[in-house]
Amino acid sequence: MATPPARDVVSIDPRTGEAVEVVAQETTSAEVDRLCAAALAAAPALDGMGRAGRAALLRALADALEARREDVVATADRETALGGTRLNGELTRTCYQLRLFGEVIEEGSYLEATIDHPGDTPMGPRPDLRRMLVPIGPVAVFGASNFPLAFSVPGGDTASALAAGNPVIVKAHGSHPATSQLCFEIMSAAAREAGAPDGTLGIVHGVQAGADLVAHPAIRAVGFTGSVNGGKALLEIIERRPDPVPFFGELSSLNPVVVTPQAAAERGAQLGRELVGSFTLGAGQFCTKPGLAFVPAGPEGDAVLDAMAEAVRATDAPVLLNEGIATSYSRISGGLAELPGVSTVARGGEPQESGFRATPLLLETSAADMPHEVTEECFGPVSVVARYDDEKTLFAALEAMPSSLTATVLRGEGETELPLAVSQELRTRAGRLVYDAYPTGVAVSWAQHHGGPWPSTNSQHTSVGTTAIRRFLRPVSWQGAPQEVLPEELRDDYRGIPRRIDGKLQLPGE
Amino acid sequence: MATPPARDVVSIDPRTGEAVEVVAQETTSAEVDRLCAAALAAAPALDGMGRAGRAALLRALADALEARREDVVATADRETALGGTRLNGELTRTCYQLRLFGEVIEEGSYLEATIDHPGDTPMGPRPDLRRMLVPIGPVAVFGASNFPLAFSVPGGDTASALAAGNPVIVKAHGSHPATSQLCFEIMSAAAREAGAPDGTLGIVHGVQAGADLVAHPAIRAVGFTGSVNGGKALLEIIERRPDPVPFFGELSSLNPVVVTPQAAAERGAQLGRELVGSFTLGAGQFCTKPGLAFVPAGPEGDAVLDAMAEAVRATDAPVLLNEGIATSYSRISGGLAELPGVSTVARGGEPQESGFRATPLLLETSAADMPHEVTEECFGPVSVVARYDDEKTLFAALEAMPSSLTATVLRGEGETELPLAVSQELRTRAGRLVYDAYPTGVAVSWAQHHGGPWPSTNSQHTSVGTTAIRRFLRPVSWQGAPQEVLPEELRDDYRGIPRRIDGKLQLPGE
Repeated sequence: MATPPARDVVSIDPRTGEAVEVVAQETTSAEVDRLCAAALAAAPALDGMGRAGRAALLRALADALEARREDVVATADRETALGGTRLNGELTRTCYQLRLFGEVIEEGSYLEATIDHPGDTPMGPRPDLRRMLVPIGPVAVFGASNFPLAFSVPGGDTASALAAGNPVIVKAHGSHPATSQLCFEIMSAAAREAGAPDGTLGIVHGVQAGADLVAHPAIRAVGFTGSVNGGKALLEIIERRPDPVPFFGELSSLNPVVVTPQAAAERGAQLGRELVGSFTLGAGQFCTKPGLAFVPAGPEGDAVLDAMAEAVRATDAPVLLNEGIATSYSRISGGLAELPGVSTVARGGEPQESGFRATPLLLETSAADMPHEVTEECFGPVSVVARYDDEKTLFAALEAMPSSLTATVLRGEGETELPLAVSQELRTRAGRLVYDAYPTGVAVSWAQHHGGPWPSTNSQHTSVGTTAIRRFLRPVSWQGAPQEVLPEELRDDYRGIPRRIDGKLQLPGE
Repeated sequence: MATPPARDVVSIDPRTGEAVEVVAQETTSAEVDRLCAAALAAAPALDGMGRAGRAALLRALADALEARREDVVATADRETALGGTRLNGELTRTCYQLRLFGEVIEEGSYLEATIDHPGDTPMGPRPDLRRMLVPIGPVAVFGASNFPLAFSVPGGDTASALAAGNPVIVKAHGSHPATSQLCFEIMSAAAREAGAPDGTLGIVHGVQAGADLVAHPAIRAVGFTGSVNGGKALLEIIERRPDPVPFFGELSSLNPVVVTPQAAAERGAQLGRELVGSFTLGAGQFCTKPGLAFVPAGPEGDAVLDAMAEAVRATDAPVLLNEGIATSYSRISGGLAELPGVSTVARGGEPQESGFRATPLLLETSAADMPHEVTEECFGPVSVVARYDDEKTLFAALEAMPSSLTATVLRGEGETELPLAVSQELRTRAGRLVYDAYPTGVAVSWAQHHGGPWPSTNSQHTSVGTTAIRRFLRPVSWQGAPQEVLPEELRDDYRGIPRRIDGKLQLPGE
């Protein structure tokens, strides 16, 4: 059989809808195989760099990306239309994350080093047992359309997989191939210079290459940020493997917000303006976009809604990331507006220019009689306000909420009773409970969690924050091992990291 | 449609193959639904007992089981033929585990409490973020045939799910329904007395009830110990849910053992006897049974094999757990013996009596030319010895090993080089690396890990050892929360457990 001709990977400007350049060819199956073999071969040497070596590698990647900040931001802006301010911030976040993960692995708690010396127990004699986490093996990372840096080639999945000690092969998102390729080249060169083995980083382009990657025996885990359907397609490939591997997907999120009556009464107009700022941020293309806001009925709630309407009318039609998102947005937001029980409160600017533009949209419904379609995520600058008459109606509606990455309460001064009840109701189905702020910002920190039950994620793991690293590790116990064969961190004379010894947590140096 | 008649759940004596008693009726879908609703309703109150309350609950369960030790062991022996010594040990282990998990939750590290105070970062201002793990919700636990106590109603999955704060519904294994029902009744009464809410524990019988349980919306995670096929069937049900939930399966394991030339030369006969002791323990029905042993060619290896053969010939035909296992054992072990390149070294006693008996079997093959069938788990008293001529042959064979719960090296006095190379080769595909001991014993401890890549488990999680609890927890972050709505462990003035504050791990009281 003749090899089918390679297909061009084209970078498109969403502001015009025009193709700008051919970035690469779609990666062939043979090339995916070669990259996977190189990643597998690189794994022991990357682990062998040690925690200090890999921390230095992460810092080198951050330094290299920052050294090319102008190019990276310009390329990403041309491909995503997200604007320089946002993309500069995203690059800063990405570099901060790489450096923070370096600190995390140097601190060493993430290894969960645990030593049980031999001894007698009620079950009889116990052998010497020592446990810690080890790298899982080569990781496939799928870049997301909406964060060309923070959730793509140099993003959280890559940073956490490398921190854990695993080679990474990224499937570049078709929406920003040039940005992906540029970041990959910058990072590859920096990795080489930092002493990382060949095969530490790889990149593939094209849908078939992504499927080949997930099916490849060398790949030991998959990180994905994208749609439920995209995630399900990858899960199906994984299930057909002879050895299904862990899949970490961040898939879909409604992010309900509750405005309490007291909050509406105290600062309704302000809340309304801020809510619009949050749901139109990045053209509404955040996984943490507040897609549904519960606002009290009556004049206090009207003040929230009026301010929202005014802010939406003043918002121009933003450029969406790609044609697919623009088409879906028109179809889904238009469909929501047509639902019985849903009315259109305000529309933003209509698209006047070329490109993948969308009209911001504010819809209203009743919490008592809410069509289930409004509880589904719609990517883009639309949000639904559900008006509630009383707490009983509010809580009945909250019970129907799907799981989300976040749930937000905007409360009155000193108010605790209703906010507590709301967050108790939503705690079972949200990964982050936000008070008096908006869910769109996701700080990178030790205490951050970005996840939640399906469909927010498919797992109990986070894709932001330092425990993201744990996804790409697996536990191993050594039983009766001589000191010489143990990893350094499990030896008797090592004191450099927190460890649990005979059940007692000990800090370094103790 | 008329309700189909309920079917009897019958307890069978494997020593005779005869039905002894009707234990219960198969649980109907309506009853599964009622139990799930009760579990869901119990969840907040069980969480509300707090860590001290649940630790007391776990101790009460252990006390109650020990108070009925004679009944429990007698019933389990009648249903499993595992014998009083083993079953007494298993009950002791089970009670120890419940009490240890009580200590773990009192110690509190398992919550991973993390506080980031608000502050400036290179990304801009960071809000107050506080993270800890919370109970995942009602858990379905599938009892295993081979451990009627330690991996069944009172076993590790139940103990860890309850410790985490979740109601549990156990699907009783059809091989020991009376033991399951008895343990359930003892534990339910003890739980009630300890103040646990109704619905904390449930039990179902029958295959359909198990399927109904896994499909039920109230169930938030599934723990399973059993076959690959059984695990895959449950995974398929989970994938059809609108909200797939985490599945923790412990499925299959070969547990390769490497005898080094030096070990064989120093103590070959002893190793041979011990290996037979390990692979015939519990009639070879351990998930950690050494199913394949690499033994050097030549006279030192012959000494290992000769001692194994002698020990196997001296072993009577044990009673297997049930008819299905006995039938599979005959078929699979018989098939292995017929494979080209495989020869029968020794057979143990032939079944002379009634019941589900099996002939112990020792097979031999060449590591250089090993049929792939010998790398598949066969439940029951059979093991294969693969002879290797040199290290090159050994390592080529190790590369073909599937992932296992364990990998074992039996080494010579002071030998480290070859053992290290073997464990580096097998570390990527084993959860526990055992030196100079046998994999069958699985101590319950802080540093234990019982898991490994597919097919040992489907996940990075353990089903033995204290981190088993983590399977049934999920992270939640609170952002900008007033102190009043935070869980106690995340409040500023709390000092009772280890916490990470602004990136620094702090011990209690600091």
